[in-house]
Amino acid sequence: MTTTQHKVSFLGLGEMGAALAQAALSAGHSTTVWNRSVTKADPLVAAGAHRAHTAEDAVDADLIVVCLFDHASVHEVLDPIADRLAGRCLINLTTTSPDGARELARWADGIGVDYLDGGIMATPGMIGTPQSRILYSGSRRIFDEYSKLLELWGATEYFGEDAGMASLYDLALLSAMYVMFAGFFHGAAMVGAAGVPAKDFALRAADWLTTVAPSIIEYAEVIDGGDYSVPGQQSLEFSDISDIVEASRAQGISTEVVDVVQRLIHRQIDAGHGTDGVARVIESIKNPEVAA
Amino acid sequence: MTTTQHKVSFLGLGEMGAALAQAALSAGHSTTVWNRSVTKADPLVAAGAHRAHTAEDAVDADLIVVCLFDHASVHEVLDPIADRLAGRCLINLTTTSPDGARELARWADGIGVDYLDGGIMATPGMIGTPQSRILYSGSRRIFDEYSKLLELWGATEYFGEDAGMASLYDLALLSAMYVMFAGFFHGAAMVGAAGVPAKDFALRAADWLTTVAPSIIEYAEVIDGGDYSVPGQQSLEFSDISDIVEASRAQGISTEVVDVVQRLIHRQIDAGHGTDGVARVIESIKNPEVAA
Repeated sequence: MTTTQHKVSFLGLGEMGAALAQAALSAGHSTTVWNRSVTKADPLVAAGAHRAHTAEDAVDADLIVVCLFDHASVHEVLDPIADRLAGRCLINLTTTSPDGARELARWADGIGVDYLDGGIMATPGMIGTPQSRILYSGSRRIFDEYSKLLELWGATEYFGEDAGMASLYDLALLSAMYVMFAGFFHGAAMVGAAGVPAKDFALRAADWLTTVAPSIIEYAEVIDGGDYSVPGQQSLEFSDISDIVEASRAQGISTEVVDVVQRLIHRQIDAGHGTDGVARVIESIKNPEVAA
Repeated sequence: MTTTQHKVSFLGLGEMGAALAQAALSAGHSTTVWNRSVTKADPLVAAGAHRAHTAEDAVDADLIVVCLFDHASVHEVLDPIADRLAGRCLINLTTTSPDGARELARWADGIGVDYLDGGIMATPGMIGTPQSRILYSGSRRIFDEYSKLLELWGATEYFGEDAGMASLYDLALLSAMYVMFAGFFHGAAMVGAAGVPAKDFALRAADWLTTVAPSIIEYAEVIDGGDYSVPGQQSLEFSDISDIVEASRAQGISTEVVDVVQRLIHRQIDAGHGTDGVARVIESIKNPEVAA
């Protein structure tokens, strides 16, 4: 099997940037690396990467991959060398907001650079494993032309020309994850107040959450169907979670996390939708309260 | 294989109570059923259950299983027949708070009844399938003596003599579930505002949440270890989630769900723990703010 070998530069060698560069290097691509703190490049250089002493030294490549601290640092590194970038392909894997990604795409377009934005759904240790997934949006041309390289890092998915879409999707998935973790911490605090070790709870909770997570697909079908009263759902009234809030309070822990969920549920019940399914909670989120 | 056949009565034949009774009946136990609305018993009676015309008619059994609307309805049904219950075994599978379960255990003890409390981690349709799990606490004797019967309904687990413990565990697991669902609804609202169907998001989110759920076991190890500064963790500073909050606001949706998570994170950062791992968030929940 012949695979095209590319000339790729990596700007930013934090744990994630280094993992991405290492994967490209191991696959035989001509790999140039740069990081503000020089020593971060040493292991990659020892493994065969070319060292760029400045970001400018790295621009002579088919593809420039940027993985920096944040949106501002992307401009800090690229603005001074903007006039050297025309005609290059740029992939930004720095965690960036949807609007930040769109701004970078416009900026890139203005200097004649093709821009693809990526949202990494993986930890650095997962790069290159089947668990890794990276969401892309922006330049379809880069996504197609470098598909084999992108697949080295993880499963890929393309969300269209809007450069902000991958980031939006990424942040939406991350929000679900962080909120799930908060729910775990809440449950662990509930039983923890009764002396149960967190790991005892976590083992059962991991099982339980994995079992119930697929129910969100059924909720989604109700949401997309637009009729929250279709039969066979657990009603909002039945999902009042007062028992949970009261038991949490009785354990002496903060009820903030479950309070917010109950508030979203109650807003729909109070609006007269108590017999509708619990999926209607999304309406409380879609429509922020004017007084909030 | 010989299994002991019991004489079991079921009080309360909502969807869940009916599923429990049906499983006992199908396994050949002598099954008596009662429900306030008489017709709910019809399918079970047609299948071979004995009809009790009053709750009192049902007390002549080795074991009485109660699955009613709430804690108050357990007393409404059992108080009038309390003097007929001495010497019986009572399993309460009504959703009850930990303190409610403890109150029922004391009440049962006072009238010479052995009491086991159960928290059902299943929907009625899951009863008897490998997905069903029921948590028990209270009388060890009932748990052991009727283990084969209990296993008809789902995997069993015993949490000790404190009758409130199964309910506490049940509510803690349910809290994690409801909060996870809220996280899904939040993410679906984020991408939904950009026109993405909820099901598109749900399919990816189900995958993603299932992939990341086991990380809670690592968090739990850190929590139990008592040192939130052990290396190899994602730091609180890195988990600031401002990007998520801002992107949610930019989509015009409510930020309530992610705001509460950010508040818990910030409370630890503000207390000087920003470089500690994200598992420290549980400290924000364990210790409610005095001013909250």
